[in-house]
Order: sequence, then C-alpha cells, then structure tokens
Amino acid sequence: MSLSRAHDRIDEALAHTLSARRLAGSPPHLVSAVRHAVFPGGGRVRPLLSLAVARACGMDDPALTLGGAAAVELVHCASLVHDDLPVFDDASERRGRPTVHMLFGQQVALLAGDALIVHAFDAIAEAADRHPARAMAMTRALVAGVGMPSGIIGGQAWESEPRIDREAYQRAKTGALFRAALQMGALSAGAEAAPWALVGDRIGLAYQVADDIHDAVGSGGGKPVGQDERLGRPSAVRELGLAGAVDALRDEVEAAIQAIPACEGRGELVGLLHDVANRLVPESLLPARRAVG
Amino acid sequence: MSLSRAHDRIDEALAHTLSARRLAGSPPHLVSAVRHAVFPGGGRVRPLLSLAVARACGMDDPALTLGGAAAVELVHCASLVHDDLPVFDDASERRGRPTVHMLFGQQVALLAGDALIVHAFDAIAEAADRHPARAMAMTRALVAGVGMPSGIIGGQAWESEPRIDREAYQRAKTGALFRAALQMGALSAGAEAAPWALVGDRIGLAYQVADDIHDAVGSGGGKPVGQDERLGRPSAVRELGLAGAVDALRDEVEAAIQAIPACEGRGELVGLLHDVANRLVPESLLPARRAVG
Repeated sequence: MSLSRAHDRIDEALAHTLSARRLAGSPPHLVSAVRHAVFPGGGRVRPLLSLAVARACGMDDPALTLGGAAAVELVHCASLVHDDLPVFDDASERRGRPTVHMLFGQQVALLAGDALIVHAFDAIAEAADRHPARAMAMTRALVAGVGMPSGIIGGQAWESEPRIDREAYQRAKTGALFRAALQMGALSAGAEAAPWALVGDRIGLAYQVADDIHDAVGSGGGKPVGQDERLGRPSAVRELGLAGAVDALRDEVEAAIQAIPACEGRGELVGLLHDVANRLVPESLLPARRAVG
Repeated sequence: MSLSRAHDRIDEALAHTLSARRLAGSPPHLVSAVRHAVFPGGGRVRPLLSLAVARACGMDDPALTLGGAAAVELVHCASLVHDDLPVFDDASERRGRPTVHMLFGQQVALLAGDALIVHAFDAIAEAADRHPARAMAMTRALVAGVGMPSGIIGGQAWESEPRIDREAYQRAKTGALFRAALQMGALSAGAEAAPWALVGDRIGLAYQVADDIHDAVGSGGGKPVGQDERLGRPSAVRELGLAGAVDALRDEVEAAIQAIPACEGRGELVGLLHDVANRLVPESLLPARRAVG
C-alpha cells in the first residue's frame, strides 16, 4: 500500500469516527473544536505505523486495525489540545493555524480534549465485533500508552515534579504512544504485542530528538522556536549539539529497524520507517544526496 | 447485599484499579491527585446502581460488573476535577476538602482528570477476559454516557453555547452517566441495555433536581451555595419554587421505579432507589415521618 493511500484510509477512519451522523445533536462549538483538532492534521505518523505493523503481521480485520489507528491519532490530538492550553504551553498557533482554545475558548478546548480521549476508545470498541478479545488487548495497550505510570499523561506530569529524568520523561511523553501504536497494530492482526515494544521505544526516542532539533532550528512549523528551552525542558540539542542530535536521530531509527521482529511484511515497514526518518530531519541539515550505484 | 457491603466492594474495585502496584513509577503528584479525587469519595451512587442492576439481572461475572462500576465512578470523579478548575466553576472546596487544583496546581489537576478518564476504560478492559464482547458493549455504553453527543462532556459543553435547552442540557450533564451506569450493569450480566435507558434518565433528572435544591438551600456540602444561580445556570428551584422542586424530585424517582423492567432482583433495586431518594432530599425538607400500619 502506498503511503498516500494509507494516509487516506486513516483519514477516512477518523472522518467516520467523527462523522456528522454520529455527532448529531452535540453542542456545535464542541463539534467544531474537535474537528479543528483532528483535521487536516499533521503527518499521521502514529496511525501510519500502526497500520504498517498490522500489515506486516498479516492484517485480517482491517476495520479493527483502522479503528485502533484512529484511536491512537485521536489521543495524540487530544494531548496537543490540552498541551496548548495556557496552563501548559500557552500556544496560540499550531501547524500555522490558531490553537483550539484561541478559536473556541478554554472551556470548549478542555472539553474537546476530554471528548477526543473518550472517542478514541469508542473507535476501537465500535470495530470490535469480529474480535472483541483483540479489541480489549488493544484498549489495554492504548491505556498503557496514554495513562499512568508511563503513558503520555504520566510523561507530561513529570514536568510538574521537582526532578525530571530525561530518558524516563521522554520515553513516556513521546515514546509511549509510538509503542502503543505499534503494539495495537500487531494485536489487531492477532499477533503478539511484546516484540514491538522496543521498536516503539526507539521510534519514540528518534521522534523526540527530531522535535528537539526542530525546536532549536525552527523548522517544524508546529510550535514556536525555542519554546522547550524557554520552558526549561530537557533537550538533546542542548546536550549533544546540533550535529550530535542529528546523528542520534539516525542511530535511533536504525536501532528501531534492527529491532523489528521477523514478519512477513518487514520490507514495507522498513521502507516506511526510512520515509518517516527522512521527513523528521529538516532539509537544511541533510547531507547532499549521494549518487547510488 | 447490604448497601454498606456494596459500597465496600465498589471501593475495593476502585482501590484495585488505582493500586500502588499498578501505578508504580508514576509521577508522585499525579498519583496523589488522582487518589485525592477518588478517595474517600461521595455516595458512590452511580456504581451502586450499576451493581444493583447487575444483581437484578442475574450477575454471573462479578469482576466485570465491578470493573464497570469502578469505571463509571472514575469518569464521574474526572468530571468533578475538571469542572472545579478555574476555567469552569473555580471551586476551591469539594466535600469539605480542597479541590485537586488547589492542592496540586492546575496542570496536575487537568492531567489527573485525563488520567481518570483513561483508567476508567482500563477498569473495564482488565476485567474483560471471560466476556470480552460484553466488555466492549459496556465500553460503548460508557462512551455514550461521557462523550458526544449526549454524554456529560456534551452536556457540559452546552454551557459554552449561546442558547441552552434545560432538559437536553440536564439530561446530558447528569442523566447520561446514570443511564450508562444502569446499562453497564445490565450488560455486565449479559442482559439487554435498552430497557434501562428510561430508568437512568429518570434517576438523572431526579438527581439534577436534588442538586438544584441543595444549591438553593445549602445542604449538599459539595459546592458553595448559590453557585448555579451565580453562574446563570438553569435551576428547577427557580422554575418551580422549593416545594415544587421537592415534588418534582419525588415524581421522578417514582417514575424511575415504574420504568424498571421485569427482572429477578427488582425488589432489592426498588429498595435501593428509595434509599437514594431519601438521601437526596435535605432532612429539613422532609415531611414528618408517618406512622406505618
């Protein structure tokens, strides 16, 4: 499956979960806020990975796989809406557009984040008919990626503690949801979750380093440059320098690829990870392309 | 089962879901905040009703029933933590103790609410082994009670709209979680959910009227007197007068009891509803007890 076809299927699954028919009768501002948070969206990296792992494991229930992929993205969007609130990052823009609370106010933004968490679990449950036990395992994997002790909420909450351990913090804040995405993909195809934990952790670390790089050089388009430094957050660029951080990013992606367990569709998945890695590094920092052959 | 025994079993289920072992490694303030939000708790009315309905329907998987009951209470606690935040009610006390954000700050309070929502779904999922399809139906019933269009989040979001319909607003804000509680109890016992919708709606309306009465006469102990009026919220007392509101409360409880479908344990459930109703009306408003016989 091409990357753009996979992207389309994920957007279709998200549109289905948040369809006008299903949300009919909701307060209109809440619906608009939720849609603003989810569409048009960013790279959809987590659900793309979830779908790719399911395919690598012999996907046999695409509705369940896509429900899980949508769930991961909904939770990710929820975390962005809450993180952008004045009480956290106080961000007025994301991806070049006003943040949810700038458009709809803090009350609606807080509720929109809550609603996105709730409907993430619904995206799994409503696709569970054929394999309810798999769906329950996916639910638990999602909880591990989002909740306590080491999901993204646990990670975020470390920022309110007097002492932060960079690796534990980043593993939870970013890595946990990648781990969940990969594991949910495997579980949706009836495969074991455990072998995918390490792959997810590595991708999460790569992604966090990439985020630090974007924060330092201002190429992400997501949040304001220097925000992490201003907020006193740990940063790979401050610790390793810019070139060192780019090397660390590449190392993590290679480590992720090495950690992929033996499976039918390994090749397609490795290709996707290379694609993702190339999109993570700002173009200005890429070495000139070498001629192949 | 006595009311106090049922209360104990629900508290045990909640303590299990938020046990030290399961949360080990979480940021300590987040754990304290979540515990503060859930323990010692209020009347546990929603989970008590959920358990009572399961028993009335021939409960055969108590772990699943109690997981669902805990889930309903966790979501209820989450809604209180978020509602108390400065952006909503700006409440400094609840049940005579400082609110979560007063003790732990707004960041941790927001995250604690998010975590409670997530772990509510976990409480169902981790008890799902024997009956995963039932657990998935319970998950969907919980989503309907919490999310869009007509769950408690949908209800709360009506407060941010220019026009509010009192019945739609109250049915969503309070009634929806009662409906979910009852339906989840039935589903956990392998029974149909649909016949319990009307019972839940009636109990929800009774509860909302009781809340309006407490708000007017200051007997609830939960939130400050006159808060709803100050915030311009609709109130049964303003519309019907105090005596009219007490009558409306009794009428709703009787209507709820009439709506209970035929089932084995109907008698115990009716007794519980009468208990709940008596606790809802402030003692000063109760007519002198009539001699029986």
